Formats: sequence, C-alpha cells, structure tokens
Amino acid sequence: MDEFDLITRCFASMDVRRHDVHLGIGDDGAVTRMAGAAADLVLVTDTLVAGVHFPPDTPAAALGHRALAVNLSDIAAMGAAPAWALLALTLPTADPRWLDDFAGGFAALAGEHDVALIGGDTTSGPTLTITVTLIGQAQRDIVLTRQGAAPGDAVCVTGTIGDAAAGLALLQKPGAADTGIDRAAADWLEQRFLYPTPRVTAGQALAGQVRAAIDISDGLLGDAHKLATASHVDITLEASALPCSPALLAWTGDRTQAEQVALSGGDDYELLFTLPEQLHGAIDTLAQRCAVPITRIGRVCAVRAGAAPGASAVRDGRPLALDTAGYRHFR
Amino acid sequence: MDEFDLITRCFASMDVRRHDVHLGIGDDGAVTRMAGAAADLVLVTDTLVAGVHFPPDTPAAALGHRALAVNLSDIAAMGAAPAWALLALTLPTADPRWLDDFAGGFAALAGEHDVALIGGDTTSGPTLTITVTLIGQAQRDIVLTRQGAAPGDAVCVTGTIGDAAAGLALLQKPGAADTGIDRAAADWLEQRFLYPTPRVTAGQALAGQVRAAIDISDGLLGDAHKLATASHVDITLEASALPCSPALLAWTGDRTQAEQVALSGGDDYELLFTLPEQLHGAIDTLAQRCAVPITRIGRVCAVRAGAAPGASAVRDGRPLALDTAGYRHFR
Repeated sequence: MDEFDLITRCFASMDVRRHDVHLGIGDDGAVTRMAGAAADLVLVTDTLVAGVHFPPDTPAAALGHRALAVNLSDIAAMGAAPAWALLALTLPTADPRWLDDFAGGFAALAGEHDVALIGGDTTSGPTLTITVTLIGQAQRDIVLTRQGAAPGDAVCVTGTIGDAAAGLALLQKPGAADTGIDRAAADWLEQRFLYPTPRVTAGQALAGQVRAAIDISDGLLGDAHKLATASHVDITLEASALPCSPALLAWTGDRTQAEQVALSGGDDYELLFTLPEQLHGAIDTLAQRCAVPITRIGRVCAVRAGAAPGASAVRDGRPLALDTAGYRHFR
Repeated sequence: MDEFDLITRCFASMDVRRHDVHLGIGDDGAVTRMAGAAADLVLVTDTLVAGVHFPPDTPAAALGHRALAVNLSDIAAMGAAPAWALLALTLPTADPRWLDDFAGGFAALAGEHDVALIGGDTTSGPTLTITVTLIGQAQRDIVLTRQGAAPGDAVCVTGTIGDAAAGLALLQKPGAADTGIDRAAADWLEQRFLYPTPRVTAGQALAGQVRAAIDISDGLLGDAHKLATASHVDITLEASALPCSPALLAWTGDRTQAEQVALSGGDDYELLFTLPEQLHGAIDTLAQRCAVPITRIGRVCAVRAGAAPGASAVRDGRPLALDTAGYRHFR
C-alpha cells in the first residue's frame, strides 16, 4: 500500500478551500492563518501502529517519546515552534504500568520542548494505535516547505544517518555479539531508533535561511526524492559524503554498507535541506545555531529536458545501485 | 475500561503548562490563544475504531460522515465555528471504492460546514481506525464549557433523543419487521445512527446565552452527569418531558420504554445545555436561532450537603430505575 497514492486518492475529492489555509495537504505540515495573529499556525499529525511502525514489544516509554518525536520532527521541518498536542490512544488493554511509562516518555519530551498536552481521546481497540496532532507557530512567511530548492543549492543533513535502521535491526534480532560490535555501540544504535531526537532548534534556525526542507522519516534517498519532486529539481547525493556514525560503521563493518543503510534506512528524524550558494561557506555558523552538526551531502540540479524530477545517489561520480533488501524499514 | 479513568491516569503526569492554554483536558474541547488573534482556537479530537464504535460492516460513506460529525459535535458543544481538519486513517486494505465512498461522506459534511481538510496520515494496520482532529474558532471569552451550570437553570436539549441507539439496534439485528415498525421508520432511525447531524449552528447561537453545554455522545443521563460534575451541581431530568421521535415511539411501542432508550442510549450528537432563569421564557426564540427544536427536560439544583454532584432521572416526581441492559451502546 503506497501511502502517497492512498492519500491522493482519498483526499483529492475533499477540496473545500478556505482563504485562511496557506498550505494544505502534501508537505510535512499544513499552515493556516488567524485574523490579527502575529504568527502562522503549523499543524501536523502522525500515527504509529503496533506491528507496523514499531515492534509490538517496544517499551512504553519509548512509544510515548516516539509518538511526540515524529510530530515534533514534522514541526521542525516546517521551521515552527511547537506548542499544543492532542493525543488519540487506542489500547487493547488498560495496563496502569504501561500507561504510566507511556505518559512518562511523552511528558519528558513535551517538557523539553514546552509542549502542552491539551486534549485527547482514549479508546479501547484490538490494535495499539497512537495518533498525535501537534500545533506550532511560525513567523509569518518564513515557514519551511519542501518547495523552493533551486539548481546550485547544496543539499545538507543534520546529525548522522542510518543509525535508527541499524538500531531497529538489532532490536529485531537480539544477540548483537553476532554482528561483531560491542554492547555499548549496539545500545547507542537501539536508542537512536527508540528515542529519536527531533531537530526542533535546528528547524527554527534554518527557517528564513534555507530554500527547502524535509524531515527524514522514510529513508534519506526517498525523502530527498520527495523534496526534489515538490521543488521540481534533481537532487544528487554523494554517498561518500554521508555522515555515518562510528557505531553504524562498526555494525556494518564496511563504509559502503553503512552508506547503503544511510540511504535506504528510515526513522532518522534528521533534517534534509538545501542551501543557496551564498550560504555554502556558512555551514559551520549555521551548525552552531542549529546545535547539531551539519554535513553537505549533495547538490541540486535542473531537471533534464523530458525527464521527471527526483533524487539519485552516486559514489565518486558513478551511479549507485541500491541494495535495500537487507535494510527495509519495519513498515 | 473506563475512558475517563484512563485519561486521568495517563495524562495526569503531563502537566506542562503554557500561558496560551485557556482550557485544557477535560471538556469537549481545548481552548488556546494566539498573540494578536481576534478569536480563540478550539481544538477537539475523536477516534472511531471498527468493532468498537461502529459495526464492521458500516458503509464507508457513513464512516466518512461520522468521523467528521462526532468532532463537529464537540466543536458545536463549545460554541465554536469549525475551520480545519486533520485525518489520521489506519486501514487493513486499500480498497479504492471504499476510499472513494469514505472521502465522499467526509467531503459532503465538510463542505456543508466550510471545513478544509488540511492534513493527514494514512497508514496500514490490522484494524480500521479513524482519528479526526478538528480546529475551530470562537469569539473570545464566550466559549461554551461544561462548567457554569447554576441552581435554577433549566436543562434543555436540541432535537430528539434515543433515535441513534434504536437505529444501531436495528442495524445489528436486521429484520425490522419483527419489531412492528415499518421500513420507513426503521430507515429513519438507522440514518440517525449512520449520519448524525452535528448541531453546529445551534452551538454558535447558544454561545454567550447559556451557562453550560455538552454534546450527547455517550447517553443523555451519562453526559448530563458529566456536566453536573463539572459544574458542581445536581441535575434532575424529567423522563416524561424527553423529546422522543415518532419513529422511536413506534419502535419501542411504549412511551416509558422510549424514555429508557433516550436516557441511556448513545450517539445522539444533540446538545444538552442549561439556561439561566431570565431565558426560560425565550426558548422558542432560541430554537429559531438554533434552527432545531429545543425541549426543556429538567432542572439544575444545588448539591445536597455531603453528597456528590451528579444527574438523575425522575418520572412524575418519582426516581426512575434505569434498565440499560437492552440498549447498551455498541462500545
């Protein structure tokens, strides 16, 4: 089931338009305006389903964290400041301990980002399903979108890529010793899956500076493709430039394997963005304001005549064949 | 599983406070404020789970309508004007026809109320689960809440009560002929369950006029109890005054049975509210502005010393024993 096709089909006929909707379906979030308000509203929603988005035995605290984190990441990709959350929780059983842990994981991250939980709906149902809707505010007219990348832009990412996919693989196949990495490195990778760090500060620092942005949830290359499509450009990623963590390199035991994981793995919740030429020299300054390392990993080109926009990866100038079989997302 | 207990337990530890949250968890919706904005924001969210909130074979168009209607009803109970919706849809299979029907049902009601669908998340999962988050706007400081009912107030409802519970019972036991009502009456009751009419116009007309309001989703008496608790008052409903439709009376074949269904059935999505004494004579005028009949069904009293606030029903002055066994909500 292709999420994008589904949404397109299902929502295409729902074309009620309002003058106060500045940006509707199709980006990381929507943007609306209230009369008289100094800021724009940015609204995002994301669902996690047990057995689809996370292994059924994932700790409750990690789920509480994650349910908010994936939404914070969307808010970050729009350059907004998060404010209010609503939580819809469908539970097979009401286990007080599970609930306490879930609430604890959610609350810790909410506190960190000054997010107030203002409403929700708790229902019973056969499958654990968590939907968070998060509303943030952004300075008028500097909201970040997937559109706007232009030929000549540098493609950059925050943090390191591929760790979460490796962490998920480790969680699904206990016995990290088999892979030849030590427990500390395995733990770190697992934490990168279980407790993703949404780049909220970075998103706000990038707003008004960069041309286009998206958060990396479905995999670096796939999300780069979405940004390229929205901006009607080509994106070329240079695999040898990808920021891979020491733990990921230790786990794969091989740099080119690590690059494959980084390109096709998911759940990183880092930001991918494009920088106009006048800022190519200012990456270090930008990274300081973002409070996270930034790495230049590719470039934006014009779409070739007659071709569709999109993203591809090269290594030392040669097109890269992607082996995604070994590192498919849990979905 | 008691929803209220669950929410209380799970959310109690999540006490991030923000100065811009005017009303948090515990009412039909939350109220927040943006700097400079002329209006308040009202935010609600409701989840429908297959086999819990509706029979699995419910038509897709009815589900699209219903998913939005239950949220519109919450917005109505707050006296707000709906504006923007987000839809989180978890589907076992991607059936294009089902999706088209669902979208059609949603879009028709959205168009009626000028609601723009601005975002969403579609995921695959074993259980059909629909969460809608709806954001509306309300004039500052006249938002309706469950608090504020005072001794001397009249308790009123919009429309007729109990139809949806009868309609659900008919849908679950086909063969309406057995019950002695004709197909037209049975159809009408089933439509009252499948296509509830949220009282959005009424909610806005009541805002600034009435003391407290709630929408009737879980059953008249139960929801009156919630309003009484939030307002720290006693509510007494007079069963003989309840507005029962001719179809409901035909289905039960008996007025007192119809009153039982009206008191304990759910899914009505009418509004229950309390009117201060100076407006007791203005119910007809109010009903005109609400574009729906309004019936006075009870009164608000002070809580007796040493007792807890709550709602009860009487018939001709005598306490009513409720037989809920036959008309339990699908939940």
